[in-house]
Amino acid sequence: MHVAVVGAGAVGCYFGGMLARAGLPVTLIGRPLHVDAIQKNGLRLETQSFDEQIALKASTEPNAVADADVVLFCVKSTDSLTTAKQIAPYLKPNAVLLSLQNGVENADIICSVLIQQVIASVVYVATEMAGPGHLKHFGRGELVIAQSPASESIAAVFECASVPVECVADVRGAQWAKLIINCAYNALSAIAQKPYAALVEVAGVSDLMAEVVDECLRVAAADGVTVPGDIHAATRRIAHTMAGQYSSTAQDVARGKPNEIDYLNGYIVRRGREQGIATPINQTLLTLVKLVEKH
Amino acid sequence: MHVAVVGAGAVGCYFGGMLARAGLPVTLIGRPLHVDAIQKNGLRLETQSFDEQIALKASTEPNAVADADVVLFCVKSTDSLTTAKQIAPYLKPNAVLLSLQNGVENADIICSVLIQQVIASVVYVATEMAGPGHLKHFGRGELVIAQSPASESIAAVFECASVPVECVADVRGAQWAKLIINCAYNALSAIAQKPYAALVEVAGVSDLMAEVVDECLRVAAADGVTVPGDIHAATRRIAHTMAGQYSSTAQDVARGKPNEIDYLNGYIVRRGREQGIATPINQTLLTLVKLVEKH
Repeated sequence: MHVAVVGAGAVGCYFGGMLARAGLPVTLIGRPLHVDAIQKNGLRLETQSFDEQIALKASTEPNAVADADVVLFCVKSTDSLTTAKQIAPYLKPNAVLLSLQNGVENADIICSVLIQQVIASVVYVATEMAGPGHLKHFGRGELVIAQSPASESIAAVFECASVPVECVADVRGAQWAKLIINCAYNALSAIAQKPYAALVEVAGVSDLMAEVVDECLRVAAADGVTVPGDIHAATRRIAHTMAGQYSSTAQDVARGKPNEIDYLNGYIVRRGREQGIATPINQTLLTLVKLVEKH
Repeated sequence: MHVAVVGAGAVGCYFGGMLARAGLPVTLIGRPLHVDAIQKNGLRLETQSFDEQIALKASTEPNAVADADVVLFCVKSTDSLTTAKQIAPYLKPNAVLLSLQNGVENADIICSVLIQQVIASVVYVATEMAGPGHLKHFGRGELVIAQSPASESIAAVFECASVPVECVADVRGAQWAKLIINCAYNALSAIAQKPYAALVEVAGVSDLMAEVVDECLRVAAADGVTVPGDIHAATRRIAHTMAGQYSSTAQDVARGKPNEIDYLNGYIVRRGREQGIATPINQTLLTLVKLVEKH
């Protein structure tokens, strides 16, 4: 099974690196900064339990997907449509794409321009690019993916590479659960440039997060989505289980890079407006991220 | 007429400095940093039209109010009660205090511990302490004060010192108008560390400010306050008339000093809660200022 990873960021490098480490042929496709470093020295995969240089192929060209049976689609939500169009001419007709992205819209966006199967997923991993070709892994690293004819065999391969994968019938509910947690943490961490535990220490922040969650739940309900579990409790837990984590939005804002806020709080605001549901706090957080981001 | 200025910050130094420049005996009471500089070299008053060292008395001691017929009360809202108690034993019984402060609560707070007359006011001035004993004035500099037996003569003295003063029957409405503009700008400028014009350039910010204003107007109406003029238009104008201004809250946050947000958006949230009026956006801005302020 040949694997291509489209988007050599923190998520793509982690899952691509783990598959390559387990012996699979993996090609990372990304920007020259990381590709050059990986071509020269391999991918440095620094985790809590090991720190290794993983040899794998790397390319800046979309045609590097040509051999792939499985494509891990790991670009930012902002780049989904453009990237899907770029790789479309080179994909095998029976290639399967796995969208390892935030938000709930990406699989549909990719499907809109491809004939190949696209499997939606939810990613749980705390990682950061610490430098060119250097990935730091802080914790977790499991996937929840939509059930499909191809899903079980893909899951089996990931399991061999020490990546736990759960195949679920209702991936949409799982995506929303993650989306809601992202809505509660990402903007605040970005605006304040603080890690998760430092946020909830401040008076009023936990209540604010709870109201963000409530707004999201009202939009989810109007969309017919059942969010699994106690999402309020799950949201509160993240401050402890990922205490030192800065949100991806915080990292993007700090680095002056495009961020995904339009697909997180911005999505809630858009869907809320379409459904006639007020989302004042998500709207305020969205606007404030726009206010602090650099251009 | 002897004048004491309690609180040698940007507002106190401007109005005290203007009165001293016109020949009145003025004593500034403040912290050692500014007092030492003023004792040594006078107050540097740098405006658009002149840049002068103004000789005046300065002291760190509350008893320096003892000679004062008029006291300009210019400390932060956070310090009103403590400072009023400190000066209480030394005030002449017939001294008149002028609260030159933000928010709508200070005159009542001061009155609660003093027997002297306290006149509420609204201050319109753009100033900043540029260093010890060095005040920079960017524009405006007029006062609106409550009508009272003493008000007309105080106004006349200020007018001689080139400080326009309007005496009004409904100072509460004028205070609320300023409070609402502060609620729209202060928190955003503090969170983003940007001046007013840069705020409204960002998509969504003008709408957000309009919603802040609407929440404030609902609380004002429940409080029986008539806010004069078109406050939405007045709010929009500030981005142009004070384009380069950072809010006092932004300046305080940048310097790690206590700020007045509890008396601005925080007041709207408190009064809203007491009146059963939802103020989600003021609440969010309040919480975010708490999140970005340094301790």
